[in-house]
Amino acid sequence: MKAELLAVGSELLGSLRAETNTLWLTDRLREAGVDVVARITVADDAALLESAIRGALGRADLVIATGGLGPTEDDLTREAAAAALGRPIRRDQEILDALKARFARYLRHMAAVNEKQADVIEGATVLPNARGTAPGQRLEQEGRLLFLLPGPPGEMMPMFTEQVLPAVRERAGGAVLRTRVVRIAAMAESDVEQAVAPVYKTFTNPRTTILGAAGQVELHLVAEGGSEAEAEERIEALAAGIRRALPDRIFSEDGRELPEVVAGLLRSRKLKLALAESCTGGLLAARLTEVPGASNFFERAFVTYSNRSKVEELGVDAGLLERFGAVSDEVAAAMAAGARRAAGTDIGVGITGIAGPDGGTPEKPVGLVYVALDGAAGNRVRRAVFPGARERVRYQAAQVALEMLRRGLLGLAAL
Amino acid sequence: MKAELLAVGSELLGSLRAETNTLWLTDRLREAGVDVVARITVADDAALLESAIRGALGRADLVIATGGLGPTEDDLTREAAAAALGRPIRRDQEILDALKARFARYLRHMAAVNEKQADVIEGATVLPNARGTAPGQRLEQEGRLLFLLPGPPGEMMPMFTEQVLPAVRERAGGAVLRTRVVRIAAMAESDVEQAVAPVYKTFTNPRTTILGAAGQVELHLVAEGGSEAEAEERIEALAAGIRRALPDRIFSEDGRELPEVVAGLLRSRKLKLALAESCTGGLLAARLTEVPGASNFFERAFVTYSNRSKVEELGVDAGLLERFGAVSDEVAAAMAAGARRAAGTDIGVGITGIAGPDGGTPEKPVGLVYVALDGAAGNRVRRAVFPGARERVRYQAAQVALEMLRRGLLGLAAL
Repeated sequence: MKAELLAVGSELLGSLRAETNTLWLTDRLREAGVDVVARITVADDAALLESAIRGALGRADLVIATGGLGPTEDDLTREAAAAALGRPIRRDQEILDALKARFARYLRHMAAVNEKQADVIEGATVLPNARGTAPGQRLEQEGRLLFLLPGPPGEMMPMFTEQVLPAVRERAGGAVLRTRVVRIAAMAESDVEQAVAPVYKTFTNPRTTILGAAGQVELHLVAEGGSEAEAEERIEALAAGIRRALPDRIFSEDGRELPEVVAGLLRSRKLKLALAESCTGGLLAARLTEVPGASNFFERAFVTYSNRSKVEELGVDAGLLERFGAVSDEVAAAMAAGARRAAGTDIGVGITGIAGPDGGTPEKPVGLVYVALDGAAGNRVRRAVFPGARERVRYQAAQVALEMLRRGLLGLAAL
Repeated sequence: MKAELLAVGSELLGSLRAETNTLWLTDRLREAGVDVVARITVADDAALLESAIRGALGRADLVIATGGLGPTEDDLTREAAAAALGRPIRRDQEILDALKARFARYLRHMAAVNEKQADVIEGATVLPNARGTAPGQRLEQEGRLLFLLPGPPGEMMPMFTEQVLPAVRERAGGAVLRTRVVRIAAMAESDVEQAVAPVYKTFTNPRTTILGAAGQVELHLVAEGGSEAEAEERIEALAAGIRRALPDRIFSEDGRELPEVVAGLLRSRKLKLALAESCTGGLLAARLTEVPGASNFFERAFVTYSNRSKVEELGVDAGLLERFGAVSDEVAAAMAAGARRAAGTDIGVGITGIAGPDGGTPEKPVGLVYVALDGAAGNRVRRAVFPGARERVRYQAAQVALEMLRRGLLGLAAL
């Protein structure tokens, strides 16, 4: 089964904004044994879009277009698809009523332009959108499937998973691809490569790709099999070898990111956490509270950006700040202990550093960060110097704090 | 002048390897006043490729294909382009001799497969490749230009700059494109559209694209002119109309995001800020401290996730929490005032709400958020109900807080 993917939107044709919907869809379709043979990004232009949709339908068994279903003048995917299929459009009263109800729920007046989101191509199956205003549409012509999906990933992804993938799987039959993502934090990409290359090089199926991001390395394993069980077995054979090559360093093989893993450990141990953040400025708190149900383990955080706030909120000794400076082993430890004491929690975390671009000195360069733990996950301090710009330094510092928490909670050796 | 770009190669259709040739070409073409209206990545499949090239030539004045000019079985761009144009191919003796000489220079035997790199489409101008084996080709049909370029960036880029760009510039007639991004926060995309459509519809140059993101709407204006000054003047004419249609709602026309704008206002007024965040969990602090030099205006933040921390850190009256609940007008205001008092700053911000997915009730649904200001930017509280998942609710709440700060600092009316 061959698929073509269309991303609709002039804004996607700049060189700055990455188009990510078709990448994500490529992965999901591959897992279902569907081969993506073309990806097209096309401007908001009715004639262009119609020609692109017609061309794709002439070549592929499955065409998925994302974007251009919104309420504005630029949103032309419905009209273009109808023209490409040679079918009329009608306004659907049921969708219109739902749109109006949705606006009312959020206490907002519905502008008239929104009504076009209720337009449906003749013969389409409407795909409800629980997370946004524009519903999707499923069409079929001469045995070929065309799906129109909304552009925002938060709406497109669940709609694809719940309403498109089952239909595609049924149509595709055959070979099955399985993917697993093995994640490692606070370790250099080249060190991971060195450790695992002797393992994955002995396999041609699964294939392995190594991907480095800030504070994290990911191994993407893709196996093909005649059945889900066979593909899964192949994946597991390689994953077992990787686990032996990286003892205690893998934090997730099930799609979870590091904050979710740490949240799970805290919750299962019924431990409460307090943070004291300086250079990360609330980033660690924001990432931990992104996990649903965070109130079960997250008590409070202090973003103590100024020296005064470190003294007033955390009880850090002013003499300590003067003697060692705010960016020091000693102050990080005092921040962690102070957060724990002030909040009355089981664990305290302290982070202090120089995120840049200014503030570095020869002894304390930009990128220098101290992370400390205090309490039930052990008393530890780690010093690190991170490369990269302000944003990367902050992100890596938060990753190290999370990995220290994970290791402390599991009783593993310090980093 | 409109262009479509084709990247040829099955290896570019994975989800891991980014296709960068078309991004690079987009930038270069824009600078030359050419509008890229579609980017297509296509697999090594002769029929598919022929259809894609024919489709692009049917829509655009300029088509540039990169890749698929090498010696292997998979390299099909020449054959596909010839078929799309309906022209024969001939083997060019001069190129063949040059290929053989090149191989001899590196003391290598030339395998027979390499000979196809000397195939030239009838009527093509050959573009010599000093850095690799495959030459490029320039073709013209019915006034439309088609360029076939090699895929390796190290060969493609210089060939484009030296042999393609001059021809394109000549054809484009020295037109110049200018872009401006107009940003508006805490306003629905459809409301922005309603307000500005009567303005931008009177312009065909610049073109306008409206883009909605969480808590923000962007208007992308692209103007074409005979000179930079003319293009800039055209942009400014439309931007002035948009400003009149959205009085006081535009926060940036110079690329800055909302935290940078608020940071600039606080800094220039020498005002210090303290935050009290509940549902946003540090997200607002993290976004504000992402701005370099944040210590000039950012004093501290309290992530008071638990009720106890609201009482202990911010001095929120426990009776208030009991009477009105943590998610209320009264508690938001008390948090803002408490943060300001505890930190001794000019301004305090309080945010409390229900980010979901759990914790909603009929009276207080998921998405309900109260944001309060206290101090030098005015004393204000705003209630809002945001749609979408946890992450979106939190982001939108932070955006509203930033927009309230901006408006308060500029002395504009409350949202």
